[in-house]
Amino acid sequence: MEFSSKLLEKAVNEMSQLPGIGKRTALRLVLHLLKQPKEQTTFLSQSLLNMREDIKFCESCHNISDVEVCEICSNKNRDHQLICVVEDIRDVMAIENTGQFKGIYHVLGGKISPIDGVGPSQLKISSLVEKIKSGNARELIFALSSTMEGDTTNFYIYKQIQDCDIITSTIARGISVGDELEYADEVTLGRSILHRVPFENSFKSN
Amino acid sequence: MEFSSKLLEKAVNEMSQLPGIGKRTALRLVLHLLKQPKEQTTFLSQSLLNMREDIKFCESCHNISDVEVCEICSNKNRDHQLICVVEDIRDVMAIENTGQFKGIYHVLGGKISPIDGVGPSQLKISSLVEKIKSGNARELIFALSSTMEGDTTNFYIYKQIQDCDIITSTIARGISVGDELEYADEVTLGRSILHRVPFENSFKSN
Repeated sequence: MEFSSKLLEKAVNEMSQLPGIGKRTALRLVLHLLKQPKEQTTFLSQSLLNMREDIKFCESCHNISDVEVCEICSNKNRDHQLICVVEDIRDVMAIENTGQFKGIYHVLGGKISPIDGVGPSQLKISSLVEKIKSGNARELIFALSSTMEGDTTNFYIYKQIQDCDIITSTIARGISVGDELEYADEVTLGRSILHRVPFENSFKSN
Repeated sequence: MEFSSKLLEKAVNEMSQLPGIGKRTALRLVLHLLKQPKEQTTFLSQSLLNMREDIKFCESCHNISDVEVCEICSNKNRDHQLICVVEDIRDVMAIENTGQFKGIYHVLGGKISPIDGVGPSQLKISSLVEKIKSGNARELIFALSSTMEGDTTNFYIYKQIQDCDIITSTIARGISVGDELEYADEVTLGRSILHRVPFENSFKSN
């Protein structure tokens, strides 16, 4: 791609470093900014800079926060003995949106994936194990993706805490609400039968 | 979407102002920046700010440029009597990439589209008409999109310069190179027959 301006070329190159944004999309976005009032570009750049510079991670659960200890961890009405292990802050947001969980979270920051060069030491596993060994938790819920890497990470953590006096559980795997049975894959369908729940529980919430 | 941080929320909101970027994509992009070294965010923000602040539009053709008159317009080896009218600077880049055009451009900055509230006065039409009335051009090539709005814009410009001593042409419409005839639409196929070219011209370049 030949650019008539070095400034444009630089902006497009930086923009196309973002995941899923190719050169053509980057050019479209940058040209859009050029057509808009200057303030839009200023606000965008400034908010990205502020975010990158000032954002904090909660000392306790490693969730993104504006303060040292996030709102969830500092909320006394939540059950601090019930810990839900998730990969990412997006998962915290997704679970919070359901309104079904009243415990606290622990954000690992990824999952063990040797192919991508991610080992246990790059994740926030040791702080979780410490938290559990200090004996303040009653139950640990694994809420990682149902993939090879997610299962590996679950198992790695489980091995480290299996001698502790704690209940471990994983979120239920089964047929999605609204799904047709005939299109479900065998493993999911098999597990949903194996882990069937009493009918009167199926329409209760909490 | 509930955010655990105001800084994050603001960055995501600004990012999702860009066309084709929804809230979820914006969150993915912003979280990506958080995982990368701080420099990446600094470079991105700075290059966007610099671009928006310092970029110029060529005085003659309204193409994006770092200087007052763009490289194409100031190139004496190009045919300044042959003007190609395009919508957007992306079209300039696309035509330049073909290597088939040795004239100069005129970038309108859009096309007449009453539905989107774009009238002739918002486009760089008057400067084009002036340029042609001053009598320095031999041929005007319309290279706008083959849509209702493109055709309207072509016709609007044509009406204003029809008394001038200038040849007007449009780029050829026809079957794309590599296309199967049976899948072409009727209008395109019809035009490609109507505007057939002598066979010996079809494999010449320039």
